[in-house]
Amino acid sequence: MTRIDGRTNDQLREVKITRNFTKYAEGSVLIEAGDTKVICTATVEEKIPPFKKGSEEGWITAEYSMLPRATKDRNMRDINRLKLNGRTSEIQRLIGRALRSIVDLSALGERTITIDCDVIQADGGTRTASITGGFIVLMEACSKLHKNGMIKKMPVNGFIAAVSVGIVDGRELLDLCYAEDSEAKVDMNIVMNDQKQFIEIQGTGEQAPFSKDEFNALLALGEKGIQELIVMQKMALRDILYSK
Amino acid sequence: MTRIDGRTNDQLREVKITRNFTKYAEGSVLIEAGDTKVICTATVEEKIPPFKKGSEEGWITAEYSMLPRATKDRNMRDINRLKLNGRTSEIQRLIGRALRSIVDLSALGERTITIDCDVIQADGGTRTASITGGFIVLMEACSKLHKNGMIKKMPVNGFIAAVSVGIVDGRELLDLCYAEDSEAKVDMNIVMNDQKQFIEIQGTGEQAPFSKDEFNALLALGEKGIQELIVMQKMALRDILYSK
Amino acid sequence: MTRIDGRTNDQLREVKITRNFTKYAEGSVLIEAGDTKVICTATVEEKIPPFKKGSEEGWITAEYSMLPRATKDRNMRDINRLKLNGRTSEIQRLIGRALRSIVDLSALGERTITIDCDVIQADGGTRTASITGGFIVLMEACSKLHKNGMIKKMPVNGFIAAVSVGIVDGRELLDLCYAEDSEAKVDMNIVMNDQKQFIEIQGTGEQAPFSKDEFNALLALGEKGIQELIVMQKMALRDILYSK
Amino acid sequence: MTRIDGRTNDQLREVKITRNFTKYAEGSVLIEAGDTKVICTATVEEKIPPFKKGSEEGWITAEYSMLPRATKDRNMRDINRLKLNGRTSEIQRLIGRALRSIVDLSALGERTITIDCDVIQADGGTRTASITGGFIVLMEACSKLHKNGMIKKMPVNGFIAAVSVGIVDGRELLDLCYAEDSEAKVDMNIVMNDQKQFIEIQGTGEQAPFSKDEFNALLALGEKGIQELIVMQKMALRDILYSK
Amino acid sequence: MTRIDGRTNDQLREVKITRNFTKYAEGSVLIEAGDTKVICTATVEEKIPPFKKGSEEGWITAEYSMLPRATKDRNMRDINRLKLNGRTSEIQRLIGRALRSIVDLSALGERTITIDCDVIQADGGTRTASITGGFIVLMEACSKLHKNGMIKKMPVNGFIAAVSVGIVDGRELLDLCYAEDSEAKVDMNIVMNDQKQFIEIQGTGEQAPFSKDEFNALLALGEKGIQELIVMQKMALRDILYSK
Amino acid sequence: MTRIDGRTNDQLREVKITRNFTKYAEGSVLIEAGDTKVICTATVEEKIPPFKKGSEEGWITAEYSMLPRATKDRNMRDINRLKLNGRTSEIQRLIGRALRSIVDLSALGERTITIDCDVIQADGGTRTASITGGFIVLMEACSKLHKNGMIKKMPVNGFIAAVSVGIVDGRELLDLCYAEDSEAKVDMNIVMNDQKQFIEIQGTGEQAPFSKDEFNALLALGEKGIQELIVMQKMALRDILYSK
Repeated sequence: MTRIDGRTNDQLREVKITRNFTKYAEGSVLIEAGDTKVICTATVEEKIPPFKKGSEEGWITAEYSMLPRATKDRNMRDINRLKLNGRTSEIQRLIGRALRSIVDLSALGERTITIDCDVIQADGGTRTASITGGFIVLMEACSKLHKNGMIKKMPVNGFIAAVSVGIVDGRELLDLCYAEDSEAKVDMNIVMNDQKQFIEIQGTGEQAPFSKDEFNALLALGEKGIQELIVMQKMALRDILYSK
Repeated sequence: MTRIDGRTNDQLREVKITRNFTKYAEGSVLIEAGDTKVICTATVEEKIPPFKKGSEEGWITAEYSMLPRATKDRNMRDINRLKLNGRTSEIQRLIGRALRSIVDLSALGERTITIDCDVIQADGGTRTASITGGFIVLMEACSKLHKNGMIKKMPVNGFIAAVSVGIVDGRELLDLCYAEDSEAKVDMNIVMNDQKQFIEIQGTGEQAPFSKDEFNALLALGEKGIQELIVMQKMALRDILYSK
Repeated sequence: MTRIDGRTNDQLREVKITRNFTKYAEGSVLIEAGDTKVICTATVEEKIPPFKKGSEEGWITAEYSMLPRATKDRNMRDINRLKLNGRTSEIQRLIGRALRSIVDLSALGERTITIDCDVIQADGGTRTASITGGFIVLMEACSKLHKNGMIKKMPVNGFIAAVSVGIVDGRELLDLCYAEDSEAKVDMNIVMNDQKQFIEIQGTGEQAPFSKDEFNALLALGEKGIQELIVMQKMALRDILYSK
Repeated sequence: MTRIDGRTNDQLREVKITRNFTKYAEGSVLIEAGDTKVICTATVEEKIPPFKKGSEEGWITAEYSMLPRATKDRNMRDINRLKLNGRTSEIQRLIGRALRSIVDLSALGERTITIDCDVIQADGGTRTASITGGFIVLMEACSKLHKNGMIKKMPVNGFIAAVSVGIVDGRELLDLCYAEDSEAKVDMNIVMNDQKQFIEIQGTGEQAPFSKDEFNALLALGEKGIQELIVMQKMALRDILYSK
Repeated sequence: MTRIDGRTNDQLREVKITRNFTKYAEGSVLIEAGDTKVICTATVEEKIPPFKKGSEEGWITAEYSMLPRATKDRNMRDINRLKLNGRTSEIQRLIGRALRSIVDLSALGERTITIDCDVIQADGGTRTASITGGFIVLMEACSKLHKNGMIKKMPVNGFIAAVSVGIVDGRELLDLCYAEDSEAKVDMNIVMNDQKQFIEIQGTGEQAPFSKDEFNALLALGEKGIQELIVMQKMALRDILYSK
Repeated sequence: MTRIDGRTNDQLREVKITRNFTKYAEGSVLIEAGDTKVICTATVEEKIPPFKKGSEEGWITAEYSMLPRATKDRNMRDINRLKLNGRTSEIQRLIGRALRSIVDLSALGERTITIDCDVIQADGGTRTASITGGFIVLMEACSKLHKNGMIKKMPVNGFIAAVSVGIVDGRELLDLCYAEDSEAKVDMNIVMNDQKQFIEIQGTGEQAPFSKDEFNALLALGEKGIQELIVMQKMALRDILYSK
């Protein structure tokens, strides 16, 4: 039994990584996973937030947003409600936390890199695509700092990527599209590094609880998908990896 | 090697459950886990949010907040910054999701139960104490609806509780206090039901990534702690359980 | 004819003062007046507001809030409306003004003491209980500064307490509970010191105007109640008063 | 010893009442008390606030604001801080409460009268001038409703006016200007009707506490001033009073 | 065929300029154009906005607001919606831009002049009256700086004024009142200096597009009106012009 | 003397129109003018704003925003300041007004079309590109309504497009890029229809005033550019134009 879009259970959607998508940012990529499309940019600023003052360390932060018509129905812009959407707030905290986990903040020096993830089109998995694409622009920005002699060594300690997995109609599936996600009894987002270690696991059984066996099957699926994504990241970043 | 407060690695902090802590709410409890103290109340209102209109179902939602001096340093109130804290927003979404997972919303009827979790004193594990205590006031409120003949059967399908686990100094520990939490390389919050099934798993390795073995050891610790918490919930709710 | 809760016209509700109610603040008390319960904390911070810069004086400020279900019906949190409630704003200005009246700000030095008054349960008289309890935590915080040698002498010049009085069904009553307050034709809040001098008098006849004689009768009732409250404050603060 | 502006202790500042100051509102006046100038308008709208639904009564509400340069230094507009000033909030609650006290809301019918008090120039006593002027436009608006047959009888039950009094340099003074107000040890605002009954008394001793005798002397001064103001209101409203 | 208020097509409404309308501001005027009435004040502050730091230049900025009942129906205050009205934002940007165009910011020195335009009564043309009146208070404030020796020469390089023009019922009209404005097929605001040069032209054909010929006819009308307004400004400012 | 990017004075930048850029909206285009890139979408909703109730007409509204890193330096998102940027507010009012001018709102029926213009990359002329692109998605959305039988005839009465012109170094230039715009002494935005009639003209001489001759030269340049843009719109919309 095939999936709604013809994939096998353990198959990622087609991924496209378009670097230099916009011209001003220190890092800029359009990442597409099937019909999900996210513009990620990295901005380097020579300042640090108040709580890092005196730390001799830098900071990595992330912001996430959707265009109003990235989805089937139009969503009001946050500014028109004067409230940051709760889901948005949760997602940008996740992206920031995940990317900070791979960075040596003292090697970065007293500067801030802001990763902006703006969803142009949403078909499930926007937060995981943001992490996978955010890593790429983080590498681009750090590489520029390195080439310009602003930092002595690359402060990034490895590769990270993220993917969603879930249980739909009793089957464990990799990389859910929106139609699958909205029927999943369990939904999990996994962030991993290239050492097959976990950075973050968020599993929710809002429609039904899940067992340890189901959980382990999902982790295995996620691991497979993430290692494939890291291969794609490495291909996309060939120029940077070989110039070091 | 004992822990900072003398506990063994797999030992919960002392839990105190004071029911009827305040007098107006349909459910009200003070839950204490060591020095963490949370007032949970349940409010029943005969209305449903717009997105549930016409569904013939009810809704469960949660709000979480800390008194300004629940912590070592004073925190500004959200209203004085005009922004809901991102962490707060994430926590109240988690509490609501967890409690909804155990409720049959159609048996609840077209009404909303709001669970307010106000932290009086914070020493780690405030979100998990909020879920454990929130479950109790949810039961109280549903029991009142049932006794008053507003609903035909209890809409709650089992018991849920939550606990934090983490890796500190290479040791897997159950129910972290704040001093432990701030040094944990991995921090995980687990929500489970009385069938030993998972409702939610949120594991973060901000300081270091973690392996599948570490992960499984933490899950086992969490399961032990949660089943103990569910026993305490059942004792605290004896009157309701036996009156059905 | 007795009152709704059996008191005589000039009788206070039972007052309970639980010191050290929470552990982090420089002052912390749970004050109960009948069913009205307020947590007051004092926070000392080594900074002053912009308008006091260069004054070589300190500052005392107060914040007041209610838990959503402190009352019979649930109140929306201010942050969800993005507006500070007008009544709240008025009350916290009153508390701050009253407590500043008794403090020698130059003896306090260039620091700020913030008095947080969080109402857990509201049954009338929450603003006056906040002043009476706020005075206690102010004393606790100043005493700590004094013992630690941060200030040379106690900057507090006396005792203050507050109470409500009103006219209900033609009778002048001391310390109105909510049921009485909502039927009062005149409602008055009085703040006094232990020299029987007034700090603040706020009398309102929203339901009917009132005469000078009625007014004087209310002031006499208020004086009686406040002097009793000050005795209780002195008993609660014995350790601080005798250690000076 | 005369006052800073040459008045005797019990003398009001010169009052000017310019009716029909603007042309669209149902009531409109410029009231001047010395250098304090306030534009008051009354707006009648055929709607009532949610909490009055079903009451068969109307509502009176007030808003108060200052132009940025009504004062010696420029004040930022509230909208640029996104917060309603706490003092403003307190004052507009006072004005609304005072004016409602004189109105029979059921005779008004299910409509709202909004009294806007916009301070053009502030030299002390802006809130009391707002009440005195607000009463005039309230009368104008009610009179129009009456003449148009919208209501059967005038819903206003008498006259009210307000004035400030205070103790400066040991002297009790009527109607403080800003220079006096900023040096007053005690500051009191009094609202009274034409029966010499009190509607509201707000006395504050922020700089020093005050005795019952001082208090009574201030009340007597206030009574004198308010009865004079009511005479002026009656003269200004001759046309309305005699047309009834 | 005459206009609604009896004017000829190329006739301005009666203009009144009342200087020193309020007493605290460095410049203060009430400008009336027919029934449109605007209070303009100028405030000088010895500070500059962040983006001018280090420029050795000053800054001119403007704020515009309407009293709630300046219009036929009452408008909610911005603070009660927590949003600055879009129209307001557009108008205050226009006023600031226009006034900056005539000022030598380096001759002004590192200080800010804020022009507040508060509309007391609105009958069309409030933004152009604000510019015409704002210029007068700008002159007053600069003249005071000059007389006090704070600046060496007047930083204002000429005169500017503004007027609206439009096409109503096929006729080109000067200085539209509200009744004309609401029926205009084309509406244009023009800012000019005393050299007959344009500072700003904003023409809108929301109800119908317009041709180059119509456009040029409107410009000619506007030029006539503005040169008349500048004569009135010069008369009103005689004392300042001749004292230089 | 050629321009910074090699164009002649009256030459547009290269325009690219990519239709169906995203998949959910009723109209969706990526419009590029040189390095300026804007995503425009049209959303049809079966509701109208309160002020159109009962009018039997529809409504067209526009929202405009920039990604934080669309520009050389990163701009904070509006939601993080809780204020809609004044420039943004002005631009979205312009776009809405321009597009409404070409639509027969009664032929549209009681529905709203929202045009979202999100700037991905900004190199000058973002507001005019938004109008030119916004017109295309408006046509797409109306065409869908027409094909589905929701409306009887196309409610769009012609074509409109917009362009900027300005005076830089004494030369009149068409379609300014950012480098030119920031040095322009005069800057003008023009909206025209395919009948060579004006919809909106906004000309500003912030750096220097301008004469009627300069003004007319700029209008002529604008007309040339806009008629070229309308040709491109017609080519891009061939399928819709010929299917009618």
